[in-house]
Amino acid sequence: MNYQRFFQEAIDQLHAERRYRVFADLERIVGSFPRAIWRSGGDTKEITVWCSNDYLGMGQHPDVIAAMQNAAGCMGSGAGGTRNISGTNHPLVELEAELADLHGKEAGLVFTSGFVSNEASISTIGRLLPNCLILSDELNHSSMIEGVRRSGAEKKVFRHNDVRHLEELLRAAGRERAKLIVFESVYSMDGDIAPIAEIADLAKRYNAMTYIDEVHAVGMYGDHGGGITEREGLADRIDVIEGTLAKAFGTLGGYITGTREVIDAVRSYAPGFIFTTALPPSIAAAATASIRHLKVSGAEREAQQRQATHTKEVLSGAGLPVMPSQTHIVPVLVGDPELCKMASDRLLAVHGIYIQPINYPTVPRGTERLRITPTPFHTDGLIDGLKDALVETWTALGIPFSDMRKPGIEKSDRIIPLVVPSAGG
Amino acid sequence: MNYQRFFQEAIDQLHAERRYRVFADLERIVGSFPRAIWRSGGDTKEITVWCSNDYLGMGQHPDVIAAMQNAAGCMGSGAGGTRNISGTNHPLVELEAELADLHGKEAGLVFTSGFVSNEASISTIGRLLPNCLILSDELNHSSMIEGVRRSGAEKKVFRHNDVRHLEELLRAAGRERAKLIVFESVYSMDGDIAPIAEIADLAKRYNAMTYIDEVHAVGMYGDHGGGITEREGLADRIDVIEGTLAKAFGTLGGYITGTREVIDAVRSYAPGFIFTTALPPSIAAAATASIRHLKVSGAEREAQQRQATHTKEVLSGAGLPVMPSQTHIVPVLVGDPELCKMASDRLLAVHGIYIQPINYPTVPRGTERLRITPTPFHTDGLIDGLKDALVETWTALGIPFSDMRKPGIEKSDRIIPLVVPSAGG
Repeated sequence: MNYQRFFQEAIDQLHAERRYRVFADLERIVGSFPRAIWRSGGDTKEITVWCSNDYLGMGQHPDVIAAMQNAAGCMGSGAGGTRNISGTNHPLVELEAELADLHGKEAGLVFTSGFVSNEASISTIGRLLPNCLILSDELNHSSMIEGVRRSGAEKKVFRHNDVRHLEELLRAAGRERAKLIVFESVYSMDGDIAPIAEIADLAKRYNAMTYIDEVHAVGMYGDHGGGITEREGLADRIDVIEGTLAKAFGTLGGYITGTREVIDAVRSYAPGFIFTTALPPSIAAAATASIRHLKVSGAEREAQQRQATHTKEVLSGAGLPVMPSQTHIVPVLVGDPELCKMASDRLLAVHGIYIQPINYPTVPRGTERLRITPTPFHTDGLIDGLKDALVETWTALGIPFSDMRKPGIEKSDRIIPLVVPSAGG
Repeated sequence: MNYQRFFQEAIDQLHAERRYRVFADLERIVGSFPRAIWRSGGDTKEITVWCSNDYLGMGQHPDVIAAMQNAAGCMGSGAGGTRNISGTNHPLVELEAELADLHGKEAGLVFTSGFVSNEASISTIGRLLPNCLILSDELNHSSMIEGVRRSGAEKKVFRHNDVRHLEELLRAAGRERAKLIVFESVYSMDGDIAPIAEIADLAKRYNAMTYIDEVHAVGMYGDHGGGITEREGLADRIDVIEGTLAKAFGTLGGYITGTREVIDAVRSYAPGFIFTTALPPSIAAAATASIRHLKVSGAEREAQQRQATHTKEVLSGAGLPVMPSQTHIVPVLVGDPELCKMASDRLLAVHGIYIQPINYPTVPRGTERLRITPTPFHTDGLIDGLKDALVETWTALGIPFSDMRKPGIEKSDRIIPLVVPSAGG
């Protein structure tokens, strides 16, 4: 075994499959978001970020930054230990109470990331419940799949958002067997929404527990930012609501909320929670400031929806193949991994527009795309500039426009928009 | 299946086994470390933390706090995405270069926690290498055990620090089979050190790859804080050096360093790295400031060693059963889970001294202990106060002193110290 050569070959394989990832080295600029400095080789260039998950720009909100700076100044830069061994800091205790309140639950538990929150919580619940059957949506995020795997429980995958398929599986398992349904509210690559009410109905009928991932919804939907479950008045019908502090709330970390008992069980039994250093007080304080702001302010949510809708309209209007989306996420189909990478590279180099290509395995082969996330800070002018840059890139690279004819002149004559934006976005 | 009742019973079981954890709600005070505010019920009380993993107090260093505040002010409170999708921020790129330099390696990779760095790296390396055999020290940390499990690779556990046993296992596997030896430099519950040179010799002889966890050593050992591998001049003989930013460096996150190829392979293949939000620029900047400070300043390391040695001497001198430790960690044996919890509670309530009890499964049953971590900020006066409080508590609760006779009067006549501090601490 030649280890060095082996790892080199593993990397070569990714290059050969055009799946090798190159990270863009960015420096965001507070006050100028979504502008950022991009470093490549020895050069620097100012660019516009169009694929951030800082969906509302809360990462640069003055209250959030001040909370972070103040907590660091008063309490230091780290937590200094695991939650159990000297690391439970007061801002973290306050944050967990804030999160429980956000979702109308008895208790909350914070993890160092959303990935860890899903992995640790699903694996722990699935492992604790005797002979548990986990029913998992086929498009669930990697972190949920890892959680299901690590639970050691039997798993059945139901077709995406297909409640009939889910019901078949529930019926076959029977009422008495422990069952956990895991799914997302907003699926982040397509921007579609789960039929939460129907899933809650089925869970009740067949006595299953429900676990929803709201990471792409918290802060952005519902009158207080409680997510799709809040918007649809369904939070009390879902057992565990999981979310993140690292997207709309603009900081770092993940969490779950639920009854005191289920939260305490995860807290007490999950190695990935027990044996890891707690989040620093500065991060917890910043997250709490962000959540509190978004509980009372709807302005960011409204502006995001308006700009996302406008982006869909403008891009569709130019014949760009905007994929159907019920949310703030605007996927534009490329359909080929190499073209997708080339489009992203060209947008950055020629137009100063940064949109990471989304290729397999994040999305199915043949659906490679650019995933655009307009924020309240992406102005109408920036949206027009984006449209022009995409049309130039689509034309230059010969990527199909939405009517599948060749791109070029007279675009406005032959536009068949793929999507009409829904009321929600 | 009654889910609610089930989780309640899972919690009840922990209470029955005296393993239920209650987190101390702390608010550390910059400038007064190791003092902190402890909240319990409605009350607050100022106490002294004696079990922090902020081993050098770097979490309150002015340079570190300033770096965190400045980065937050300039770049915002979050990273805004995964490393691949808009989340790679410039301070993180700088941090990875700094870490590679710290360990004399080609490349570094940062994770959101040390737990994730071990779990993701070990599982990915073990899974990538064909038919890999993982050889794992029996006292390895939970995060390493999870990584080994998730790799799906065959595992053989060798007796703690036992190179003969390790050699038997290596010999049986043969030179050609891929083999990964995973171990720690400093074992944090006992404070002992691995025979790194001998393990490196064996790895060479039997063509095995080596992975060392230096989380309880980085920043604290070696002329530049590169850990035990630096102190013993062995860094270039270990393939992967893993460390944390959340203990001696006073911030948050974990990392690995190694050749460009192995780091790139983990970067490219580990779901727990790929699909998670990057560390915020403020955390990365603070960690870099801390590492840079400790690369040139030995004062913190010297003060820590001096105070740890002094603590061992003073406690041993009072007949307290200090367990053998070659490092800055000072474990004091209680030997019973209930007494251990009672001692911890009494120290906090009566003496304002916070030392979390360490019970099974973190340590073997019968070796329950208080694990004390003196920092440069634990003065001789605080150490004397600790000694008095421990003696009072040991006496009040009837915990055995080091000579195993009953505690009480004439302690100084019958002391048989369990440990003579080594040169290293």
